[in-house]
Amino acid sequence: MDRFEQEHSQNQNRHRILQALRLHGPLARVDLGSIVSLSPASVSSITGDLIRDGLIREVPGGESGRGRGRPKVLIELTPQAACMVAVKLSINRIEVALGDFAGGIGPVAVRALNTLELTGEALIGHFADMIDACIKSIPADFGPLTGIGLAIQGLVHKNETLVWSPALSIRNHNIAAPLAERFRLPVIAMNDADCIALSIRHRAELEAIENLAVVMLGTGVGMGLILGGRLHSASSGAGAEFGHTKYQIDGPLCHCGRRGCIESFVGDYALYRDARSMLDLPNTDALHPSEEQMQALVDLAQSGHPVATSLFQQAGRALGYGLSNLIALIGPDLILVTGSGVRGYEQMEPEMRRALDEALVDTLLTQTEIRPYPWTADLTIRGIVLQVLDGVRGG
Amino acid sequence: MDRFEQEHSQNQNRHRILQALRLHGPLARVDLGSIVSLSPASVSSITGDLIRDGLIREVPGGESGRGRGRPKVLIELTPQAACMVAVKLSINRIEVALGDFAGGIGPVAVRALNTLELTGEALIGHFADMIDACIKSIPADFGPLTGIGLAIQGLVHKNETLVWSPALSIRNHNIAAPLAERFRLPVIAMNDADCIALSIRHRAELEAIENLAVVMLGTGVGMGLILGGRLHSASSGAGAEFGHTKYQIDGPLCHCGRRGCIESFVGDYALYRDARSMLDLPNTDALHPSEEQMQALVDLAQSGHPVATSLFQQAGRALGYGLSNLIALIGPDLILVTGSGVRGYEQMEPEMRRALDEALVDTLLTQTEIRPYPWTADLTIRGIVLQVLDGVRGG
Repeated sequence: MDRFEQEHSQNQNRHRILQALRLHGPLARVDLGSIVSLSPASVSSITGDLIRDGLIREVPGGESGRGRGRPKVLIELTPQAACMVAVKLSINRIEVALGDFAGGIGPVAVRALNTLELTGEALIGHFADMIDACIKSIPADFGPLTGIGLAIQGLVHKNETLVWSPALSIRNHNIAAPLAERFRLPVIAMNDADCIALSIRHRAELEAIENLAVVMLGTGVGMGLILGGRLHSASSGAGAEFGHTKYQIDGPLCHCGRRGCIESFVGDYALYRDARSMLDLPNTDALHPSEEQMQALVDLAQSGHPVATSLFQQAGRALGYGLSNLIALIGPDLILVTGSGVRGYEQMEPEMRRALDEALVDTLLTQTEIRPYPWTADLTIRGIVLQVLDGVRGG
Repeated sequence: MDRFEQEHSQNQNRHRILQALRLHGPLARVDLGSIVSLSPASVSSITGDLIRDGLIREVPGGESGRGRGRPKVLIELTPQAACMVAVKLSINRIEVALGDFAGGIGPVAVRALNTLELTGEALIGHFADMIDACIKSIPADFGPLTGIGLAIQGLVHKNETLVWSPALSIRNHNIAAPLAERFRLPVIAMNDADCIALSIRHRAELEAIENLAVVMLGTGVGMGLILGGRLHSASSGAGAEFGHTKYQIDGPLCHCGRRGCIESFVGDYALYRDARSMLDLPNTDALHPSEEQMQALVDLAQSGHPVATSLFQQAGRALGYGLSNLIALIGPDLILVTGSGVRGYEQMEPEMRRALDEALVDTLLTQTEIRPYPWTADLTIRGIVLQVLDGVRGG
């Protein structure tokens, strides 16, 4: 190897060590070495450099793993070493927060607005205002601002072009370039379900899973796919559109304009649309029923109301058939069902399981575990923070 | 980097150079360097070693790419440097051939037998006999025999356990270990559609495609998936079971035992089953209609016979809806439709395209190209040869 190649390899090792500490830290050097498969000498040399550069720091550890009682020195990332700005766009809402080098998130600023009315310029204007305010709030002891990440409800092409979003009327708009130019920083945009999948996988107990599907239930039905240990992304920015696979040809109309998609049975708007035609429910914003409205519907089903019960049964059946196609095509080790719509999971599950049994032979079915995953809204922002930090080589 | 890590990296570079030559060779050193992104000095040093080891050789090239007319020296793999035995199992048929280091294939030995009757021991016995005969035929000037590859019609777990095959009655049988023990060689088993996908992608013009789906039509309907540039495999050995995604809930019975699968509309047996109930066709082996029977059905449709036409239209519609789910979930850049069943592609295509338009919004649809790929049976054997050679580090 020549000098250039050796340095390239050295940089990769620095990066792997930083990633391992972000995921598993704080860690003793010996455990760090076994995670990244580097010799003690290499770990020692690289962590020495990283401590000198201020990117990591030593902290007193607990007892040694071998039980000899001698306290170990652990190392962890220095949160203030660098920071980034995370932006989340969803229907009628923009959120912005500061992410630190260890993946922590500061207070979230929220702006409510009518996103469907926005021009491309106005959208960028809102982003820029809020990013400005976030940058002004960075504590004085923080290191360099390394990038901006945009988590977008919708299709994003090549981390920069918003192809389509249910929150916006504009289409095919480059949302990264104008911000990159204004702030002189790298900017990456990503689909929100992909952010959530990254965020969920970024837990020590799920890291070893090679093929993971995270299905997001809510107003729409989305998915993030980790395949072969990496986030799957179609070159087009599309892909992972689980909600628009079919349950029933010529079935009910979907938000996408086609018929019979899983989303047209399982999405909040679909459940509420059907419920309203049968039950005496408040006639509010049917496109985006509120959390209270949806929770009321779940409660009705839980109390045994036949119409509400039957709606969640049908949704469960559609979900089950949709998952059967996902399992047949990709065979994930684990499917996690999350998003705000997971509130109705218990009502859907029995029919979902029945549909899966009906659809697939055991050989295909038994290898994939399916379970709900508790939903918290900050999974999206955490995912985009991790993605931007992944680009910080620290070298 | 310590010595061990440096050697590891060196070995990886040797491997990348061998792979590039297998795919693109013969190549000038300068072109090889740009393909593998190594400096001229590194390429020179590694190719020097590989020539000394007899794995590659220099051949006189044509004119220089710059048109100056000075002939360039090209390098290519030495076919005799090493070899491997390729075995292919399909319904009532075992084939065995010798693969050389450059990926070339020798004469194919074929044994016809009733595979469904075989015990696990008898199956291994047939494999071993035929591998023995193949090994005896290796020319004297060939280098070491480096491995055995098994391309199996069916699900294979962890490259060794046959989970299920339509050709066999045995289930969950380790088919690699007894051969590895007997021949003292590494043995890997793989699904045949995966072999075909590898084989097709192993062409210079398709190598850059990140996400490729190869759909195999024939008696059954299978698929091989290249995702993020790598063969996708579910940890279970299942996955890529495109044929068992659903077109019609409670639809016709499928070979798998469930109802309404794509295969139960598009598979040869499904087309022939329906045709025979309507047309006066020879009543032969309906489970596995012959190529002649199937070609006769295609000819009928081509000549405008209404029943045959309608069968292929319905098959096209089921195929289109199946592909729409594949596109929504994964968004491949390219879908190639191949296998012996591609003979009916022209008859299916108009309805397939109509179904795709009906199923998906343009944003999702327009990014994936779909086209037929000419079918030759040796794609399977070539794929398993390439996979075994990929494990030969040449170091």
